[in-house]
Amino acid sequence: MRVLVINGPNLNLLGTREPSVYGATTLADVEKQLRELATELGLELDVVQSNHEGVLVDAIQQARTDGVRYVIINPGAYTHTSVAIRDAFAAVDIPFVEVHISNVHAREEFRHHSYLSPIATGVIAGLGTEGYALALRFVRSQL
Amino acid sequence: MRVLVINGPNLNLLGTREPSVYGATTLADVEKQLRELATELGLELDVVQSNHEGVLVDAIQQARTDGVRYVIINPGAYTHTSVAIRDAFAAVDIPFVEVHISNVHAREEFRHHSYLSPIATGVIAGLGTEGYALALRFVRSQL
Amino acid sequence: MRVLVINGPNLNLLGTREPSVYGATTLADVEKQLRELATELGLELDVVQSNHEGVLVDAIQQARTDGVRYVIINPGAYTHTSVAIRDAFAAVDIPFVEVHISNVHAREEFRHHSYLSPIATGVIAGLGTEGYALALRFVRSQL
Amino acid sequence: MRVLVINGPNLNLLGTREPSVYGATTLADVEKQLRELATELGLELDVVQSNHEGVLVDAIQQARTDGVRYVIINPGAYTHTSVAIRDAFAAVDIPFVEVHISNVHAREEFRHHSYLSPIATGVIAGLGTEGYALALRFVRSQL
Amino acid sequence: MRVLVINGPNLNLLGTREPSVYGATTLADVEKQLRELATELGLELDVVQSNHEGVLVDAIQQARTDGVRYVIINPGAYTHTSVAIRDAFAAVDIPFVEVHISNVHAREEFRHHSYLSPIATGVIAGLGTEGYALALRFVRSQL
Amino acid sequence: MRVLVINGPNLNLLGTREPSVYGATTLADVEKQLRELATELGLELDVVQSNHEGVLVDAIQQARTDGVRYVIINPGAYTHTSVAIRDAFAAVDIPFVEVHISNVHAREEFRHHSYLSPIATGVIAGLGTEGYALALRFVRSQL
Amino acid sequence: MRVLVINGPNLNLLGTREPSVYGATTLADVEKQLRELATELGLELDVVQSNHEGVLVDAIQQARTDGVRYVIINPGAYTHTSVAIRDAFAAVDIPFVEVHISNVHAREEFRHHSYLSPIATGVIAGLGTEGYALALRFVRSQL
Amino acid sequence: MRVLVINGPNLNLLGTREPSVYGATTLADVEKQLRELATELGLELDVVQSNHEGVLVDAIQQARTDGVRYVIINPGAYTHTSVAIRDAFAAVDIPFVEVHISNVHAREEFRHHSYLSPIATGVIAGLGTEGYALALRFVRSQL
Amino acid sequence: MRVLVINGPNLNLLGTREPSVYGATTLADVEKQLRELATELGLELDVVQSNHEGVLVDAIQQARTDGVRYVIINPGAYTHTSVAIRDAFAAVDIPFVEVHISNVHAREEFRHHSYLSPIATGVIAGLGTEGYALALRFVRSQL
Amino acid sequence: MRVLVINGPNLNLLGTREPSVYGATTLADVEKQLRELATELGLELDVVQSNHEGVLVDAIQQARTDGVRYVIINPGAYTHTSVAIRDAFAAVDIPFVEVHISNVHAREEFRHHSYLSPIATGVIAGLGTEGYALALRFVRSQL
Amino acid sequence: MRVLVINGPNLNLLGTREPSVYGATTLADVEKQLRELATELGLELDVVQSNHEGVLVDAIQQARTDGVRYVIINPGAYTHTSVAIRDAFAAVDIPFVEVHISNVHAREEFRHHSYLSPIATGVIAGLGTEGYALALRFVRSQL
Amino acid sequence: MRVLVINGPNLNLLGTREPSVYGATTLADVEKQLRELATELGLELDVVQSNHEGVLVDAIQQARTDGVRYVIINPGAYTHTSVAIRDAFAAVDIPFVEVHISNVHAREEFRHHSYLSPIATGVIAGLGTEGYALALRFVRSQL
Repeated sequence: MRVLVINGPNLNLLGTREPSVYGATTLADVEKQLRELATELGLELDVVQSNHEGVLVDAIQQARTDGVRYVIINPGAYTHTSVAIRDAFAAVDIPFVEVHISNVHAREEFRHHSYLSPIATGVIAGLGTEGYALALRFVRSQL
Repeated sequence: MRVLVINGPNLNLLGTREPSVYGATTLADVEKQLRELATELGLELDVVQSNHEGVLVDAIQQARTDGVRYVIINPGAYTHTSVAIRDAFAAVDIPFVEVHISNVHAREEFRHHSYLSPIATGVIAGLGTEGYALALRFVRSQL
Repeated sequence: MRVLVINGPNLNLLGTREPSVYGATTLADVEKQLRELATELGLELDVVQSNHEGVLVDAIQQARTDGVRYVIINPGAYTHTSVAIRDAFAAVDIPFVEVHISNVHAREEFRHHSYLSPIATGVIAGLGTEGYALALRFVRSQL
Repeated sequence: MRVLVINGPNLNLLGTREPSVYGATTLADVEKQLRELATELGLELDVVQSNHEGVLVDAIQQARTDGVRYVIINPGAYTHTSVAIRDAFAAVDIPFVEVHISNVHAREEFRHHSYLSPIATGVIAGLGTEGYALALRFVRSQL
Repeated sequence: MRVLVINGPNLNLLGTREPSVYGATTLADVEKQLRELATELGLELDVVQSNHEGVLVDAIQQARTDGVRYVIINPGAYTHTSVAIRDAFAAVDIPFVEVHISNVHAREEFRHHSYLSPIATGVIAGLGTEGYALALRFVRSQL
Repeated sequence: MRVLVINGPNLNLLGTREPSVYGATTLADVEKQLRELATELGLELDVVQSNHEGVLVDAIQQARTDGVRYVIINPGAYTHTSVAIRDAFAAVDIPFVEVHISNVHAREEFRHHSYLSPIATGVIAGLGTEGYALALRFVRSQL
Repeated sequence: MRVLVINGPNLNLLGTREPSVYGATTLADVEKQLRELATELGLELDVVQSNHEGVLVDAIQQARTDGVRYVIINPGAYTHTSVAIRDAFAAVDIPFVEVHISNVHAREEFRHHSYLSPIATGVIAGLGTEGYALALRFVRSQL
Repeated sequence: MRVLVINGPNLNLLGTREPSVYGATTLADVEKQLRELATELGLELDVVQSNHEGVLVDAIQQARTDGVRYVIINPGAYTHTSVAIRDAFAAVDIPFVEVHISNVHAREEFRHHSYLSPIATGVIAGLGTEGYALALRFVRSQL
Repeated sequence: MRVLVINGPNLNLLGTREPSVYGATTLADVEKQLRELATELGLELDVVQSNHEGVLVDAIQQARTDGVRYVIINPGAYTHTSVAIRDAFAAVDIPFVEVHISNVHAREEFRHHSYLSPIATGVIAGLGTEGYALALRFVRSQL
Repeated sequence: MRVLVINGPNLNLLGTREPSVYGATTLADVEKQLRELATELGLELDVVQSNHEGVLVDAIQQARTDGVRYVIINPGAYTHTSVAIRDAFAAVDIPFVEVHISNVHAREEFRHHSYLSPIATGVIAGLGTEGYALALRFVRSQL
Repeated sequence: MRVLVINGPNLNLLGTREPSVYGATTLADVEKQLRELATELGLELDVVQSNHEGVLVDAIQQARTDGVRYVIINPGAYTHTSVAIRDAFAAVDIPFVEVHISNVHAREEFRHHSYLSPIATGVIAGLGTEGYALALRFVRSQL
Repeated sequence: MRVLVINGPNLNLLGTREPSVYGATTLADVEKQLRELATELGLELDVVQSNHEGVLVDAIQQARTDGVRYVIINPGAYTHTSVAIRDAFAAVDIPFVEVHISNVHAREEFRHHSYLSPIATGVIAGLGTEGYALALRFVRSQL
């Protein structure tokens, strides 16, 4: 039971970028914790981070080839601008949970629209890096 | 480490009301699972459900007196109409997670606005009743 | 064949409040007359009045448990503001008649919109407290 | 104690015209039932049906001469277009109840405005042909 | 000469809730000062605070029974959403002054509309907890 | 030199209908005064009143057959809704003065539009029943 | 094979009313010619003319009772104002051709809207009284 | 007594093009029937069909030279776009009837405007190819 | 401790202008009472009244030169139109209380907006001329 | 130095078509006068008139072959609808003056837009047939 | 397998008209190349060019008679104005490719709308005269 | 003579993604056919497909270094969002043809705008995967 966690642009800076907004945990920390949790939950975990919209699209496409059953994605800034990522999900037809570390509802107006939410299973926002683990647990409950 | 789970109007009907939208699990089921999880997580759990806006406000205020460290709330219909619940959270200054069972981003226009989201820690939507457990795990990670 | 009559906020003042608008009959009078009529019609009658939105939601939910077949409701001020009461009716799926003592079509603009009318069987407005008895007779004809 | 029941244009076709909207009871059936109810209630009943706006105005004026104490009117298509009928009621100063067989609040936009409602005692809508009997009972209670 | 001071939702938290907005005086302090001033002015003073819309409606209704001559009300969040409280004042026909501790004209847009102001004698806003004392002096001048 | 005075719907109730708006003079009084004035002015006077749009159309048509030289008309409620009466005047080509007892410009919005005014010689409004006499004097000056 | 020809308000003046607009043929002439043509075409012809909206509604309803197969109607001024005539056609479900003697497309704006055209088979406008005969020939071709 | 029948673009395809809208009769059929009818009516008939706006303008101008007394035109797509055809009619001052096979009042919005109707004698719409014959009979009646 | 009381246009007519709205006390009376209260409170009081927007701006500017510590202003009609007065307050940076004798929230729509409220300390409306005294007491509590 | 004068649709009817608008001079008259003026000015003059958009396009194209130096065009009705004529001028790159006999700016709305004006040297409108001569004089001044 | 290539207005000037926009190849060159290519591809080729809208409509209609299987059309200026050409394609139901020599997406706003594109198979724009050959190859691949 | 064919995001899924819109040919099939055609045309062909906006930008930049003479690009979802790709083309100054497999003029509104078209040589849309071959042939004709 394979699950893919995708992180979008600038999330590689997690822990260093605006800690007041995103917290001090690094992406490496997050991924390590998720891998441990995956093992505990009996899930196989792949992780991808990229600042490239295209790499994210690739990863979503590859997920189908790899037999990935669920995707957890924090699309970062591409949440609000990428038709290509949305098209990729529509093309591969794999269910996904959208995660945001910060509470987008409490930030700028332009962060309130997501191209992905309407086709996501659900959304977790504002729960920090813990949001990923929660999403993973949810995914486990669905498989 | 005390946590309060608040459910708003009509959520006591969970499992019987419009199952196609809200699922078949009852509120009692949900609370039982949450209590077990709380015990597992070493948390003390209080639950409140009320169809009364005022009772919800009281519960939020009482939470401070009781030393509640975190609130998980599914405000139901009051999400869209209650300034008083928002003000209560602002007054007691206890952090809270807003949970919606269904994916509100994919439903009627009037369910897209929340008076609470801008002052919540975060929001979990569309992950079914599993959303409560995830919120509880998140809360545990914060205490 | 059980029928529930619900009265919303300030209707307990009936007979004393703005008699020029609402008439001189008290709510107790109305309820007594309705009980007599119910007996005559072979109906079992429950009555509830509350100034609390939550109590009204409770009563609608309880109606299903109690096997109530039809509800007659004068939602008072909540006609114009309560999504929770509308959701309660949607949840329990019991048919109802909306009653207004005064002719709302002849009053302030903000009393012209009802959250309930579109999902009611029908509406009786402006026929004073007699409106309840008429609604009861109609309900009898439907059971 | 004389009561006049007025039916406007095309209501003579009741039971034959668009039964899915207006039901299968004919106007003769309705009038027969109303006469029986009137007798039972100790009321003298006059009935008028006309497709003529002027005849309806005359009937309303004549009602005063005849000592009619109350009018029950289903103005049909004239609900939305006749100032003359409204003026007639204002002139004779006989109270009236406006009845609509269907729930106009749930139909086409142009059926939501009534020239009569603001000067009616009240309105009964959506309770089928039963609405006339209810109106008659109300009238009885006022005399 | 009895006067009733009503405080709406979350005002029981006064002095502890967002002191930068509402100041550091507690509701108990305010009530103590008002009682002293009432005594000085020869007025009998009742105080009520509740987070429940329904309880506020109840209190307004009770005021008439108790022979209250004037009400001073800070409706808090219900200022902007409660038709029921407005109707309660209309029903008991007791004059009232609306008080807001903060200058609502300088806060969020949704705090600019009041259902009560149009039927209040007047409004005092932005003068801190001193506003209650000023209102009480005004009430004294009217009795 | 024959003149026709036409009164539309509900004007037969003059003197009894809403005296605060229309005064206490009856239509019979008005007609008597107009006949006397007509005699004084050397005019032959016909009078018609009907509540039927069709009868008013008939009367205007008949006027031509009868050799009527001028019409004075108070079209009542049909002022605002009848294209047929307008067409009748256009058809018979007899000049006419439009009279309104009340000041329609100071009443409800829907009384501000007249289908007749654009083809009338002129309009007298708000001068009470005196308006008819003034119209008659004007007509005299034109013949 | 019975056909009904209906003429609305002021069409009885045909031949005398604004001959520049409507021509010099009288309605009697028209009806005589239509009867002759009907005989020639093997059709049974009924004719109705009235200045009364209600009489027109009556005639349309009667047409069904009489087994009329097609209606030719010149609704005159009621074209633009009568919902009742439209409802009558909808109720009896008899096909009809709408005829206008003058070219309504070349006249006042308010003559450009017809309540009937959208439910008519077709429309003949501006061909004078000949339009009736043409409509009759068309009707013959359809039966 | 010469009459010209003009058909605009694509009407040469009549009977083959979208038969559900325009019927199965070909233009040749229509013209044959019209010629027979013309002979019967003692009229000389010219027919023109062209897909060329300029040819239609020429034909209209030539009509004056040829002593054509009346034109019957179905302008097809040029109804909505040709000012030149309108100007041609205005220039030659020959009366014409505009014919549409389908009921344009019940089709797409852009087919509701005609550059020709305001200067036509009249319009026949929705009566199928029969409309031409009716127009011809009308023309006969005018000569 | 100097305080300035400013009255805007038409307030010089106080006691004579629309007494039903503004009461019978004259501006001279008000100023006399305020001076007495100021003396009692240990404040130095200046008063200005002008119908000229420019004079009011001058007065506010002069207040700074004069060492005024607080301003009480009833801007009258300039409340709704004067940006210049607002700018004057912003420029001199002297705190002020806005007073309205009548309850502006219960009057015409155009009296509901104030250019001054958002930069005032607070607002007193509808408490009659007593409002000035209350404002003065408030000012005393702030100095 | 060759100049081409082009006249569009219906201008061949000049002098006979709507003389009140276009005057009584025929196109032949105009052309004769222009030829005389051309001779006087030392210009060679070609003239073309057609009702066909395509022929006008052809003529403009031919002008280049013929070495025409300037075109004077009255495009008639095509002024408002022909992109093809505009493109023809753009293609041959011969300067042209646009002439309208009547003042198009004072006629129907749809005569206010010209596809040609933006690429014309200039426009003369409303100066009658004299406009052609003025255009010719202008052209002379440019060669 | 017959294919028709249609060129609209001014395309006969190809190679001479605005070479910077349309290139230096003449229409004759283009047609010669297309014929050669057609032979090579085993297609029978017809070509039409006209500045006349009607001729283009004729050609499209004739195509059906001639058994043409596909049309390649460069409608030139008529792209933007001709409903008749669109209707012709709809009538004959032959598939077609729309070709533009210049890149219309990079020119004036009014060249961005095409009446034909929505019913074309596809569009080739901006590839110069080569676009025709490409369209022909595409057509070959479809037959 | 080197040519580069670029395919944007999700086009690698060609033949598997929504075949009803994009057809069943895979990208590999397309590239194979293009290579064969390139060989036949004497062109050297590079192909790039990437879901990465950046890779596409890199590829365009690299093309200049590699001496690519022409680019054929199907930008997929980036058509509508990528200014970077447009800028890359503007920077390297290599001509390109934009290809869309489907007829974008007949799809969703947000697919009607292209950032690339205005600076492309031209566009081919709706001709399926054949569009690439056509573009290649065009490119050959330009080199």
